[in-house]
Amino acid sequence: MKLSKSIWQTYKETPTDAVIPSHQLMMRAGLIQKSAAGIYNYLPFAYRVIRKIEQVVREEMDAIDSQEILMSVVTPGELWQESGRWEKMGGEMLKIKDKGGRDLCLSPTNEEVVTDIFRSNIKSYKQLPQSLYQINTKFRDEIRPRFGLMRGREFTMKDAYTFHIDKACLDEGYDRFYSAYQKVLERLGLNYIIVEADAGAMADGDAKTHEFQVVADSGEDTIILSDKGYAANIEKAQTNRVGLDFDTTDQKMEKVATPNMSTIEDVCNFLKVPQTYSLKSLMFKSINGDKEQVYLIMLLGDDELNELKLANYLASDHVVPLTDGEMFSRNIPKGFIGPVNMNDDVIVLYDNHVNENSFYTIGAMEKDMHFKGFCPARDSQGEVTKIDLRLAKVGDKAIDGGVVSEKKGIEVGHIFQLGDKYTKSLNATVLDQNGKAVHPLMGCYGIGITRLMAAAIEQNHDEAGIIWPSSIAPYDIYFALIGKTEEIHQTADEIYKEMKKDFDVIFDDRKQGPGFKFKDSDLLGLPVRVILGERDYKVTGELEIVIRESGEKIKVKKENLSSKLKEIFKDIK
Amino acid sequence: MKLSKSIWQTYKETPTDAVIPSHQLMMRAGLIQKSAAGIYNYLPFAYRVIRKIEQVVREEMDAIDSQEILMSVVTPGELWQESGRWEKMGGEMLKIKDKGGRDLCLSPTNEEVVTDIFRSNIKSYKQLPQSLYQINTKFRDEIRPRFGLMRGREFTMKDAYTFHIDKACLDEGYDRFYSAYQKVLERLGLNYIIVEADAGAMADGDAKTHEFQVVADSGEDTIILSDKGYAANIEKAQTNRVGLDFDTTDQKMEKVATPNMSTIEDVCNFLKVPQTYSLKSLMFKSINGDKEQVYLIMLLGDDELNELKLANYLASDHVVPLTDGEMFSRNIPKGFIGPVNMNDDVIVLYDNHVNENSFYTIGAMEKDMHFKGFCPARDSQGEVTKIDLRLAKVGDKAIDGGVVSEKKGIEVGHIFQLGDKYTKSLNATVLDQNGKAVHPLMGCYGIGITRLMAAAIEQNHDEAGIIWPSSIAPYDIYFALIGKTEEIHQTADEIYKEMKKDFDVIFDDRKQGPGFKFKDSDLLGLPVRVILGERDYKVTGELEIVIRESGEKIKVKKENLSSKLKEIFKDIK
Repeated sequence: MKLSKSIWQTYKETPTDAVIPSHQLMMRAGLIQKSAAGIYNYLPFAYRVIRKIEQVVREEMDAIDSQEILMSVVTPGELWQESGRWEKMGGEMLKIKDKGGRDLCLSPTNEEVVTDIFRSNIKSYKQLPQSLYQINTKFRDEIRPRFGLMRGREFTMKDAYTFHIDKACLDEGYDRFYSAYQKVLERLGLNYIIVEADAGAMADGDAKTHEFQVVADSGEDTIILSDKGYAANIEKAQTNRVGLDFDTTDQKMEKVATPNMSTIEDVCNFLKVPQTYSLKSLMFKSINGDKEQVYLIMLLGDDELNELKLANYLASDHVVPLTDGEMFSRNIPKGFIGPVNMNDDVIVLYDNHVNENSFYTIGAMEKDMHFKGFCPARDSQGEVTKIDLRLAKVGDKAIDGGVVSEKKGIEVGHIFQLGDKYTKSLNATVLDQNGKAVHPLMGCYGIGITRLMAAAIEQNHDEAGIIWPSSIAPYDIYFALIGKTEEIHQTADEIYKEMKKDFDVIFDDRKQGPGFKFKDSDLLGLPVRVILGERDYKVTGELEIVIRESGEKIKVKKENLSSKLKEIFKDIK
Repeated sequence: MKLSKSIWQTYKETPTDAVIPSHQLMMRAGLIQKSAAGIYNYLPFAYRVIRKIEQVVREEMDAIDSQEILMSVVTPGELWQESGRWEKMGGEMLKIKDKGGRDLCLSPTNEEVVTDIFRSNIKSYKQLPQSLYQINTKFRDEIRPRFGLMRGREFTMKDAYTFHIDKACLDEGYDRFYSAYQKVLERLGLNYIIVEADAGAMADGDAKTHEFQVVADSGEDTIILSDKGYAANIEKAQTNRVGLDFDTTDQKMEKVATPNMSTIEDVCNFLKVPQTYSLKSLMFKSINGDKEQVYLIMLLGDDELNELKLANYLASDHVVPLTDGEMFSRNIPKGFIGPVNMNDDVIVLYDNHVNENSFYTIGAMEKDMHFKGFCPARDSQGEVTKIDLRLAKVGDKAIDGGVVSEKKGIEVGHIFQLGDKYTKSLNATVLDQNGKAVHPLMGCYGIGITRLMAAAIEQNHDEAGIIWPSSIAPYDIYFALIGKTEEIHQTADEIYKEMKKDFDVIFDDRKQGPGFKFKDSDLLGLPVRVILGERDYKVTGELEIVIRESGEKIKVKKENLSSKLKEIFKDIK
């Protein structure tokens, strides 16, 4: 591609809504163009990256005998009504009425459609397992689309679905996707971590689910890692604190004045006790359909609540903290809350790490007052219910015994054992060995194609621009000509043609100076830049190769260029 | 692909809504599944065909240096409002409000978006021409989706757009697409005709537009062909009648009673004159915004009106025939209409083929009465306006002097010189040689990818099923095993592996008899079937090859299979 003929332009300005590097760099490098909030057009170089990612994914899906299909982007409301998700999916599903007044929606995901395809075609256990995938446009009407392609509304995803006669077969299919996803991410040259993910309240106890996280500082997900190998999304991570030592020697419960001390830190400093000797009291409301219940959550003073664990335990649609107004109207004194004298309709839950036979400082349900010496087992109004509620943190001990650290990640893949949720709700059955109709088990497996492009940039960039992993770089080589004469243009054309035999080359033949071209080249971030500088070339007969990642510069004679480039790319790939 | 592992199923029943062969055969051959009216899921074998078609199109687009992009499926209403098409596109544009209440739509076409991309990136004539294309999902909310993929609502299309500084450059770009489309259709192995198409009322006189029509009896379009080479869509075709001979010897106009004779045929039989000596009178209403005008259209008695020519001449949004009710309320006696004594507010238009100095039979504007001897030049109430209004027909003389015949076609491609319509309405400018901002000229070029698949079937099928052109067949070979022993299965596996080295092979390893397998194989229509029949093979060591298109059968020894197949495919391709 000659840049003089291309639509490609770079930009100096970063749009104000672009706050993470991938978004900023994709805009500045002329890869994408915003069409509407969270909706982008992919310009030629970005689309080359997308197609390369798609091809790697496709090859690995084909390698595990998944069958490629294409489901419609627009799907009928009926199917979603049948599964019960028409209402439950909420606002992220963009619903449409067509000219005939029929309900349609833009597919945010395809469990319903694929189950419909399955039930129309497969009738016997003999035809199982089945594995289907597609690479297609999805739409989720995010309230606040942000971070460019990371949390856009329209995006490209590979979604796959498998159907199995039993759990053993599902596990086998699941493992194949697990390995295939590893291969994809390795081929793409990305640094990633596979983590245990949260399966949600409705999942069977033994339903597996894993996320594939690309490591990057800007990642929205927190990954809990053990030095012995365990890894989980913080939402799911089950870890234990170390070094806790609770005194169970009898103490009296007594009220102490704590004027204007509404934080754990203030109270513990004032009372000269470690924060682990106090309990944090959090008021939450659980909403389930039209039912509401208020909970008081008790954690060690320096622990944080994992809201997802709470929601899962309660099998709740949503859990939300009580607002100041709600607390006020219930006479709950913010900053001085505790289980003693708590309103009768509130259910109290303790985190597992609280020792019910030890003694803690708690709020006294009275402004500016706390209790010292509260013993859950002795002083609770009811029985003490303890569950796992705390958020894992650095320094914890993981379930494999290792020490916990944290990393930030971008979820680019998610695999999930769905069980019979959709085959039941859509009544998809096959006849089993005994001629009995049974609901097959399903797995689902997603990879965000456009998100992978963004994640690759988050992980691989510097001040000057993108540093593409060579497997998905839009081109291999940025060939910059610095010179004006007819003669050097002719030489450049020859070199360009020669390089094109082995590589995908961009030829920057524009009438611009070296500074301009090198900036553009660094911003675009192809693995290798080749410079033909007229002055140097006339004197030495040499061109210069610059490796984008390392910055290494290599002088090479024209006749050795091709072999040198092959050598370099052998190393890179 | 082993069929025992595949989701593929065929069906004996034809769905009632499937009335054309491609729709029937795609449903019966398990290629597509209906998701909603005019919306289909593409099952594995169909999607292989689609991807093959896409790849051919992509290669030919890349060969003419068009740059591939991907525009969003959902586009913002603002852009369409800016171009003025938000209202004009009418019902076929599916409009959506997102959660934030903003106007969006599912792209039916992309002139607006691509012009927006262009105007953001290109500033100078030096960067012209530009050529961009995408292969993507489109949506048109057809009132009456029908004919399967032929007139669906969701479909895949390749759309391309070019931008040029002047008409010479546009013509050059247009010609490149013209040739590229020829190459695409040739590579796909389809029998097609390139026809002149109608450019619409707003087009410049010299704006070129051509349709690429795949010849098929079920085609919705009528193609007018001259034996000297001219070809045009009947909507556009300008041809002349031959053998007309009009008498201009003076005749008196007189009223004749024609009781209950309201058709040209009846009247001419009764008066014993040829139908060309009578004039057909048609009442039409032209609607333009909120303005209406009624026209009386006069054609030779045995000619038909080309409504599109009328609409173009009138530069009208719509032309529609007057209803019986409208005629009644205006005192226009249906069956006895004519220009003499016509209501004053009606404008009369004559087709070019009417000789204004000759004498014709016309309706007398009185029930059961006609005039004989009407001479337009003498008896018209105003001046005689003659324009080209008639529909071309078989036997006409084309503008190249050849004799006209008709064929039915399916429009699979359309190329079009848009001029500056969109660069003007969206104010996309570049600086020209003199530093002056000018609106570049555009071309647009579409190929229906999913429609091509349907058209290929319309053109290539028989009673038993589809006959895929080998370039787009989902697989090359249908390998049917007829046998049950472990031993023959092992032999079949070896043969399958051997064939897979050179060909894409479906291995029908299901537990079914030969009749079942051969029917499925014929229905699916791969170019070649290879049969391993246990009984024959044991006796002769031979397999059978059947060519789908010709039905030719060839016996071949196992050791010669591979070379024989290569020979066959060399012939086919």
